[in-house]
Amino acid sequence: MSELIEEVIVPAYEARTIEVRKGQTLEVVDLEGQQVGDLAAWMISDPSEYLSPAHTVSSLAKLVPVPGDPILSNHRTPLMRVVRDDVGRHDLIVPCCDPERYSIDYGVPDHASCLTSIQAAIEGHPLGLVINGENCWNVFMNNTVVDGKIITAEPPHPAGSLIELEILEDLVVALSACPQDISAVNAFNPTPMALRVKA
Amino acid sequence: MSELIEEVIVPAYEARTIEVRKGQTLEVVDLEGQQVGDLAAWMISDPSEYLSPAHTVSSLAKLVPVPGDPILSNHRTPLMRVVRDDVGRHDLIVPCCDPERYSIDYGVPDHASCLTSIQAAIEGHPLGLVINGENCWNVFMNNTVVDGKIITAEPPHPAGSLIELEILEDLVVALSACPQDISAVNAFNPTPMALRVKA
Repeated sequence: MSELIEEVIVPAYEARTIEVRKGQTLEVVDLEGQQVGDLAAWMISDPSEYLSPAHTVSSLAKLVPVPGDPILSNHRTPLMRVVRDDVGRHDLIVPCCDPERYSIDYGVPDHASCLTSIQAAIEGHPLGLVINGENCWNVFMNNTVVDGKIITAEPPHPAGSLIELEILEDLVVALSACPQDISAVNAFNPTPMALRVKA
Repeated sequence: MSELIEEVIVPAYEARTIEVRKGQTLEVVDLEGQQVGDLAAWMISDPSEYLSPAHTVSSLAKLVPVPGDPILSNHRTPLMRVVRDDVGRHDLIVPCCDPERYSIDYGVPDHASCLTSIQAAIEGHPLGLVINGENCWNVFMNNTVVDGKIITAEPPHPAGSLIELEILEDLVVALSACPQDISAVNAFNPTPMALRVKA
């Protein structure tokens, strides 16, 4: 039985960070269901090396990692490995939502976004962390590619669904509980998530 | 009839840069056929704003832009618009090749890569340009997504094929003639390309 070391609740519309160490397990938990989280991570030994969905997709040659697959850095270092996944739906090819996504694509200025939530969560971090929107893994996002088109649907997963990640490097991890409330991404109802570190 | 302002030949296995201004046209030309180019671009007014394939895919909600579609920055600014495309095959979801792609995924250390070629081409640039592999558009790359898997095939396009881009902002553009010679990407035979700026 694994031991809970730390739990961080990520409120709806916000982001939080947590540190994890090699050998630990990180659970990303959707507390109320149908919620997407945007996950970023940086190597503590060198934060210019970060979780890269694009490099992961490239080396796996598939859009969605499954249990057993590594999640890679921009230098193709395995940072985590998927152990258990209750959901099996993820997006690793579109950036996290950002102010321009709402203002330009939806005509809604000043909307909360995963990018600004993560920026707020890492502001002043002693490692000088930098977030680029294209370096977020959209955990549990129900995107599919059909005939080259990206279709976003409401996520069907229930409360308590989680993905369990074996941590392979010492990392700072940030998770945003996605604030998208004007499209199907979070079934029009953003809710909180949790990060749980276990030994 | 448009006027040729500048032509830069990009030798096989290398990268070059060129400056383009709003209102000009940029042609990316495959001189000998079956060759892929990796294209990066930065706003001259603020090089922290750069061409982002991920943001382009996100806002277009499709994997491959077609004539009429904009190519966006990381702030979703339209930087270019596709005018003519002889090939119609592109990849905007995997990074350009990098040293670790060859050393880890192919077991070949010290292989030339688009990332190192572009790094060499922009080294010492007065704008202090930075290249991240995930911010390269793999022009003419014959990748398709089938059942969530990424399939790379030899590009079928002939010598002289080009894509014509209307330039919407003043940019520095870098193009790498991809040096991948151990997979189907360039039909196992990297060859030169050209960048042509027209008024």
